[in-house]
Amino acid sequence: MKKEIIIKFATEQDLERIVEMLTDDVLGSKRECYKKPLPESYVNAFQAITSDPNNELVVACYDNKVIGVQQITFTPYITHQGGWRATIEGVRTSSSERGKGIGCALIRWAIQRAKERGCHLIQLTTDKKREDALRFYERLGFKASHEGLKMHL
Amino acid sequence: MKKEIIIKFATEQDLERIVEMLTDDVLGSKRECYKKPLPESYVNAFQAITSDPNNELVVACYDNKVIGVQQITFTPYITHQGGWRATIEGVRTSSSERGKGIGCALIRWAIQRAKERGCHLIQLTTDKKREDALRFYERLGFKASHEGLKMHL
Repeated sequence: MKKEIIIKFATEQDLERIVEMLTDDVLGSKRECYKKPLPESYVNAFQAITSDPNNELVVACYDNKVIGVQQITFTPYITHQGGWRATIEGVRTSSSERGKGIGCALIRWAIQRAKERGCHLIQLTTDKKREDALRFYERLGFKASHEGLKMHL
Repeated sequence: MKKEIIIKFATEQDLERIVEMLTDDVLGSKRECYKKPLPESYVNAFQAITSDPNNELVVACYDNKVIGVQQITFTPYITHQGGWRATIEGVRTSSSERGKGIGCALIRWAIQRAKERGCHLIQLTTDKKREDALRFYERLGFKASHEGLKMHL
């Protein structure tokens, strides 16, 4: 049987693996804390996300293993005649499984989901240090039309 | 009595004036629709925003007139050890009232509010065509560390 990438909503059983993937990343390794049991802040965030109808945390699975993750947030705005937007954040794929098209499968899923939810726009920001990620998103049809500004509090 | 800028949560009575400000903008004029009565999509968006505890629409008032608007969205994420972020969107000030520091008052309010809500980061995207806006946000302490990618659906 041909193995394929399956995208599904994350469950709390996936959370350790999600944090492991977030930590296995050149930027994430400096700011995440992967240990068992997980710090409570991750569990609290998971519960806040999954109890909010405007947030969805999804994982990509291959051969029964979780090998990718992303979060999508749906937001109503007054701008664009009261249009809803989808925002993608925290896209990560397993470093040992690159080249299977996991990132592409996740983003295509998000685009389809955003359309289902009636969004007129899908957006994300990517660190300017992630040059490969920028090219990846541009290939999928995103335009780097905006500056992404951040301030740590 | 010295007049001062007051920031408050928007009510439905402010909505026409908000849409008027969004339309009186070089980019907004192409995509908004200011007429009376307002298109229903604006009213629906207003209701979706104000009924969601993670979205706040605020206006700046001066001399009893609404002269500025912005929306803040609070989002729980797994990244950054399950940290919450604040996202600012749709910041507009009345073109006839520039120079009073309205934009600055709105953003400082948002920063304070994000801290109250326990956010570790406040963020926004601004169109690369808005060069003045970019300088304004950088003066307030934001760093243009990210690319802001968008795709219209």
